[in-house]
Amino acid sequence: MIELIKSRRSIREFTQEEVSEDLIEKIIEAGKWAPSGLNNQPWRFLIIRKQDKIEEISKYTKYKKTVNSAKVLIIVFLDKGSSYNYIKDVQAIGACIQNMLLFIHELGLGACWIGEILNQSEELNRYLRVKDNLELMAVLVIGHPVKKERKSSRRDIQDLVIGWG
Amino acid sequence: MIELIKSRRSIREFTQEEVSEDLIEKIIEAGKWAPSGLNNQPWRFLIIRKQDKIEEISKYTKYKKTVNSAKVLIIVFLDKGSSYNYIKDVQAIGACIQNMLLFIHELGLGACWIGEILNQSEELNRYLRVKDNLELMAVLVIGHPVKKERKSSRRDIQDLVIGWG
Repeated sequence: MIELIKSRRSIREFTQEEVSEDLIEKIIEAGKWAPSGLNNQPWRFLIIRKQDKIEEISKYTKYKKTVNSAKVLIIVFLDKGSSYNYIKDVQAIGACIQNMLLFIHELGLGACWIGEILNQSEELNRYLRVKDNLELMAVLVIGHPVKKERKSSRRDIQDLVIGWG
Repeated sequence: MIELIKSRRSIREFTQEEVSEDLIEKIIEAGKWAPSGLNNQPWRFLIIRKQDKIEEISKYTKYKKTVNSAKVLIIVFLDKGSSYNYIKDVQAIGACIQNMLLFIHELGLGACWIGEILNQSEELNRYLRVKDNLELMAVLVIGHPVKKERKSSRRDIQDLVIGWG
């Protein structure tokens, strides 16, 4: 598990290979088992596989090329109607996304978590015609990764732990 | 991995067995490898093991008994000085917490994610004497779980997926 966590990378280039509906459902299954405040499960998912739609959606972020390369998008929303506490709900969405990212990585697939698209959430929500109770949280772009070495780093634990008591 | 995700539960009763410093560092290691916007790593951790401090902290939440039963607290903060985008940062904190919860579960330890304590974050921050740039995000209470059956449930995928396109 720690190796899975540490070897996960953001994947920005995908092959032409498709991702089956069955796998997509398994990814959602992993996401939905995240914890949330009072188990309110505030996450909602919109799944996009049609290439022309993916292309349209790519216009709402500067990471257009990455989005366009993907075979599937899982667009994650917060259902404000199921809200318990906004901060806790947004954290729960992060936990849900992380479950999906780890599981995608374990499947040998790859993903990139696009947050920058939140800059255009109103415009994207209008294009997607989603209900007003749904707040855009992230777009996960998913596919089979083009193989290459991808490095990443994190700060030392000493820089992150502010104290022991 | 999917089994690990689905079998994780909130643990609210712990045995008297200690959790070693080494394990605590491994848990932080799992947390810090979460993704964050532009890899800004906005998480900071305060680790509490002294029983009298745990008891003091337990007074800031209605889940006093759960906190008091724990052997370790990992208090998670958002470093506003490292902020990139508040919503993305709060999501990243959620991803970081989920990494820790999954890894804790894999180790055979247990944890409960206390969010309700945010209602008293100002008071708790004052007691902990943390710097102003740190915003309280959650308290994870950790220990060796008292063994018992713990059930949980999630909504059907059909209720969570708002569409396929």
